[in-house]
Amino acid sequence: MLMTTIDPSLLPFFQPQGIVLVGASADPTKLGFGVARNLLQSDYKGAIHFVNPKGGMLLSRPLHPHIADVPPPVDLAFLLIPAPFVPQALVECGQKGIRAVIIAAGGFRETGETGQSLEDACLHIAHQYNMRLMGPNCIGLLDTHLPLDATFLPPPGPTPGAVAFISHSGAICAAVVDWARGQGFGLSRLVSLGNQLDVCETDVLPAIAADPYTRVITMYLEGVTDGRRFMQVAQAVTRYKPVLALKVGRFASGRQAVASHTGALAGADTAFDAAFRRAGIIRAHTNEELFDWARALAWSPLPRGPRVAVLTNAGGPGVTAVDAIESSGLQLATLQPETETQLRAALPPAASVHNPVDMLAGASPEQYADCLRLLLADEGVDSVLLILPPPPMYSAGGVAKAIIPTIYAAQKPVLVTLMGERLIQEAMEHFRAARVPEYRFPERTVAALAILTRYAAYVQQATTFPVVLSDVQPERARQSLVQVGEEDWLSPTAVTELLTAYNIPVPASHLAQTSAEAAALARQIGFPVALKLVAAGITHKSDVGGVRLGLVDETAVQTAFADMLARVRQIDSDAAIEGVLVQQMIPVGQEVIIGVTRDPQFGPLVMFGSGGVEVEGLADVAFALAPLTEADVNYLLTQTWAGRKLAGFRHLPPADETAVRHTLLCLGQLAADFPELAEIEVNPLLVLPEGQGVWAVDARARVGNEIGRLRD
Amino acid sequence: MLMTTIDPSLLPFFQPQGIVLVGASADPTKLGFGVARNLLQSDYKGAIHFVNPKGGMLLSRPLHPHIADVPPPVDLAFLLIPAPFVPQALVECGQKGIRAVIIAAGGFRETGETGQSLEDACLHIAHQYNMRLMGPNCIGLLDTHLPLDATFLPPPGPTPGAVAFISHSGAICAAVVDWARGQGFGLSRLVSLGNQLDVCETDVLPAIAADPYTRVITMYLEGVTDGRRFMQVAQAVTRYKPVLALKVGRFASGRQAVASHTGALAGADTAFDAAFRRAGIIRAHTNEELFDWARALAWSPLPRGPRVAVLTNAGGPGVTAVDAIESSGLQLATLQPETETQLRAALPPAASVHNPVDMLAGASPEQYADCLRLLLADEGVDSVLLILPPPPMYSAGGVAKAIIPTIYAAQKPVLVTLMGERLIQEAMEHFRAARVPEYRFPERTVAALAILTRYAAYVQQATTFPVVLSDVQPERARQSLVQVGEEDWLSPTAVTELLTAYNIPVPASHLAQTSAEAAALARQIGFPVALKLVAAGITHKSDVGGVRLGLVDETAVQTAFADMLARVRQIDSDAAIEGVLVQQMIPVGQEVIIGVTRDPQFGPLVMFGSGGVEVEGLADVAFALAPLTEADVNYLLTQTWAGRKLAGFRHLPPADETAVRHTLLCLGQLAADFPELAEIEVNPLLVLPEGQGVWAVDARARVGNEIGRLRD
Repeated sequence: MLMTTIDPSLLPFFQPQGIVLVGASADPTKLGFGVARNLLQSDYKGAIHFVNPKGGMLLSRPLHPHIADVPPPVDLAFLLIPAPFVPQALVECGQKGIRAVIIAAGGFRETGETGQSLEDACLHIAHQYNMRLMGPNCIGLLDTHLPLDATFLPPPGPTPGAVAFISHSGAICAAVVDWARGQGFGLSRLVSLGNQLDVCETDVLPAIAADPYTRVITMYLEGVTDGRRFMQVAQAVTRYKPVLALKVGRFASGRQAVASHTGALAGADTAFDAAFRRAGIIRAHTNEELFDWARALAWSPLPRGPRVAVLTNAGGPGVTAVDAIESSGLQLATLQPETETQLRAALPPAASVHNPVDMLAGASPEQYADCLRLLLADEGVDSVLLILPPPPMYSAGGVAKAIIPTIYAAQKPVLVTLMGERLIQEAMEHFRAARVPEYRFPERTVAALAILTRYAAYVQQATTFPVVLSDVQPERARQSLVQVGEEDWLSPTAVTELLTAYNIPVPASHLAQTSAEAAALARQIGFPVALKLVAAGITHKSDVGGVRLGLVDETAVQTAFADMLARVRQIDSDAAIEGVLVQQMIPVGQEVIIGVTRDPQFGPLVMFGSGGVEVEGLADVAFALAPLTEADVNYLLTQTWAGRKLAGFRHLPPADETAVRHTLLCLGQLAADFPELAEIEVNPLLVLPEGQGVWAVDARARVGNEIGRLRD
Repeated sequence: MLMTTIDPSLLPFFQPQGIVLVGASADPTKLGFGVARNLLQSDYKGAIHFVNPKGGMLLSRPLHPHIADVPPPVDLAFLLIPAPFVPQALVECGQKGIRAVIIAAGGFRETGETGQSLEDACLHIAHQYNMRLMGPNCIGLLDTHLPLDATFLPPPGPTPGAVAFISHSGAICAAVVDWARGQGFGLSRLVSLGNQLDVCETDVLPAIAADPYTRVITMYLEGVTDGRRFMQVAQAVTRYKPVLALKVGRFASGRQAVASHTGALAGADTAFDAAFRRAGIIRAHTNEELFDWARALAWSPLPRGPRVAVLTNAGGPGVTAVDAIESSGLQLATLQPETETQLRAALPPAASVHNPVDMLAGASPEQYADCLRLLLADEGVDSVLLILPPPPMYSAGGVAKAIIPTIYAAQKPVLVTLMGERLIQEAMEHFRAARVPEYRFPERTVAALAILTRYAAYVQQATTFPVVLSDVQPERARQSLVQVGEEDWLSPTAVTELLTAYNIPVPASHLAQTSAEAAALARQIGFPVALKLVAAGITHKSDVGGVRLGLVDETAVQTAFADMLARVRQIDSDAAIEGVLVQQMIPVGQEVIIGVTRDPQFGPLVMFGSGGVEVEGLADVAFALAPLTEADVNYLLTQTWAGRKLAGFRHLPPADETAVRHTLLCLGQLAADFPELAEIEVNPLLVLPEGQGVWAVDARARVGNEIGRLRD
């Protein structure tokens, strides 16, 4: 059931008792006429009022000169007047007791400072009157079931259906409504959000999800207003209704300069991918994917698993389908022997009764229906992909009519590849009327089936929540941060404290100022030791010869100390050298990198992958939002070679994967607990053989002002 | 100009003087009626004859009882009779002097041994009469311009057009013809190849390319008959006409067991990718891509470069287009100041005159036309992507009419994103009639534009031929192969000889049988040295402790020798140890892997990438066909992190990239010169700093029977 609440202040947008259109026009070339026409033609059952200072009549209704003149009921206003007049109209709406207003006009924030001031004025008035605003710079909203069409979209409006569309772009709405009609699917609700001065995508999501006619929600997003809130709300919705999103502007957002591998590897879109994955939102990468998939989710039962049977009358498209199945994570079902026996009896000898089942070109409508029934009855089959090019001896329409009753009765999805154009028109109309998803080519059909299967697996899983660790020491970590400035790297000692407080083990290490001191510390720690330069501004120590490993006695330590300082001075005579860390040497293990970076919209991201100096070149890394769930940790380990090889590889013995998992959870919680931590990077995190744990051999952390841009 | 010759024996298929249909039927439900109807309705100008032993009349023409009865002219036969009757009919065709026959029936090789014998008999007869065969198991061929329709496709046939289609699958043809009509593009020729008993895809390619009406060739391939010949023919064609291919069955072909990284990393489709790249064939991955791209190539001029201007009346689709442009290797054009000034004068103040140019929702047909002209006139613009959702105030058809003359006159491509369905019908018809490529959504438009741009770049480049090195010593290499069995690994000495003969330097190394011998050899080579186990059947030496590096004196060598043998015996007491190589130690450098594997269809492939033991996990490798062109070498180095970092990376100094390039060319030539070499792998190839060359530190090579399956 719905786990988020619908804000009651939004109800007038979705269940208005009466609507006033301010700026109604009798001129058919004006948008003010278009909205009036759509309101009347949409068969809306509430009151419809028109306001225009000129007075007169419009479509047999009076044009009231003022908002104050409008008789009750009226709880939603649609303002179709130029931007400068909007604040005064809002005041009049407020005085009239209207608490929901759609502002359609452009000319606000998107045009510059004057427009921004106008928006500020509008928001001020809205707060004064406890009023919610949609827009400005939007085309309105519609509901095909209420029904209500409060938009200036060109007619005809969408056919009633089960797919809702929430859009940051108004222009795309007209195309989507028109295209949906051509593709044979209807819409339930459509909301154009415009500049989102007040109501945003996250606000409307639960309201749209609560609509009983909506089975799938599609979103066209240019960003989100508050990343973490969006995720929480979406995660509650996606458990019971699928949400598909097309996020545009992947390359639009500039990136700030970053000093760590983790920051450099996190692309502008990494956080969206991580957030969508956590929230269970299915990300489409093209408009066609968005609606191909929505149609399948709206019309089809969910499969119990990934095993697909292919039924075709032609070998070529069958091969294409198998290629697509193999590369999309689905599986070709293995048919039970009795299914094959029964198929054999129903088909000519040359037909192939193994999956993909090829009935040959002469397949009749009855053979299509019989074989489909047999495949659906097979317990090893979770879904059927049926391929129907124009049959040489029969009509595609005849096949459609023969199989639709079987598809209707089935508890398993049957998706159809209906190939051609004119020869398949009748079949297409039958399938669409029966709500059977059909696509022109096997690849698109398989992609839709893969999404159905993925969503089915998602809802079958228990919701995973971030793991909360109770044995960490936030107060100790906080102490390590108090001496740091608002934007600065932590000292090695502070980094050690920080990580240790969150159970990430750091080898014993001490700062030496002289080679003699280094030798003494080394004796105290025990040989062999490593030396590591500490100098503000030098972030990649190994690049400047600032790392020496495996020093076996005091002489070696003293020589290496002197040598290191000399080399660094030679490269950068101004380097602010604070000293040299003398560090316990760690046994050999697998080297990985773990890190934290911070996204302005979604907050902290944890990175995991192949470490070393070439981490950016190899790019074998994955990201998840902090704090992490167990599912996130699985994702990080399975998506990377660094994670997969922890299980052992050829000469590499299995490494302590359990310790890596625990360390990732600790790091995620650390990042979530301290928003002021802008970057953390442990490279390498050395992973010892099974049962022997991990060591954060080299680590650094930075506090920064990124928190100022975060809302959570 | 066409650089391949058309086999004159194929001419009767494409320019027949007279056709006889054997198996013509008066029963409208039979395919034998369908072909007769299509032949007559296609308006074919040559003679049309029907044969059926029953005699009588069909569609006002006589049904001759025997092939011998057919009057001249007749030079092409279409056999639509059951498989068992085909050999006798072929004999009659041969006796009649017919030299080209299409065999439509199935029931041959695809059904088992009896069918295979029938095929053998047919081929024997064909050779006897110097006759060419198309099929069996095909639907025939058609030419919309000759015109000729010798298929049993359901009517109507395709509209005449500029796209040719060559297909291994007959079933897909009906769907493609029908779908093409719906997408508004016509076909020039269509050839269904079936089982390819005689005529194959490579044979027909030059004949189709020579057709003056064909501007683009599309292929639906399930494989190729002779990989190297296909490449040569295709490379000649693609220079002057684009060839697009959809290769299906990516996952169908089983892989033989392989013993090297190189073999394991070469997927079943790797060779196709390499071959298509070398031959200039554009590989589509879905049916829709195949024809989306074909339409753009058939209808549009080629751009001079990658700089795209976007013209839109809506922000959302503009952003989507920019995303797609950035991710497809195209560039957003930077408009010249005077262009922006003129755009500013033509548009309202709130419009954006920077690229992407957003005219806002109120844009009129005249504004669309004016802005398009300005963008096309800008020297910094190579192509224009025009976005047209249903305009709120005007009709999309009006915009289409206003801009088509400008698109027609332009020397630059203009591709249109025409969004919607019913509201854009008129515009769509105008664009299709004017041969302007239009697509529903920005992503597909950009993908087509990217292909136009890629093909334009391809034809502008000089043809690259494999580099032929004259300073290699094939005879010396041949000597190193004489002592090896038909399927065996080469001895270390033989490998050294082989590589040295092709200028790939191998460190000094000698085989020792005892630890004393190893110590003596080490002294002779000079310290430090490395020890490497030599044992038949142990291919990954480091996995079993069979590699020891940096041994600094005789004692170290002796200890390591004993230790190595003990460890190996412990792991595998039956290991056939031949001895231990004592090898010159090489200075530190970058480690890469180079290798050769052999594809059954395309022959030797050269691999390059990140080496070490984790090469399969990291999969940072690329492949090209041997012998290599300079373009192949560029590809290998730019596609891999191993190649990119040769230029230097952070602490890594620049490595000797020139030596790597030369070594790759040498390896490619070695692989091409000796087909019996089934696998070669050098891992690592150590690359020293600039000017200091490379060393094949560890290498192995195998001869094998793969050559038996090769035709070149």
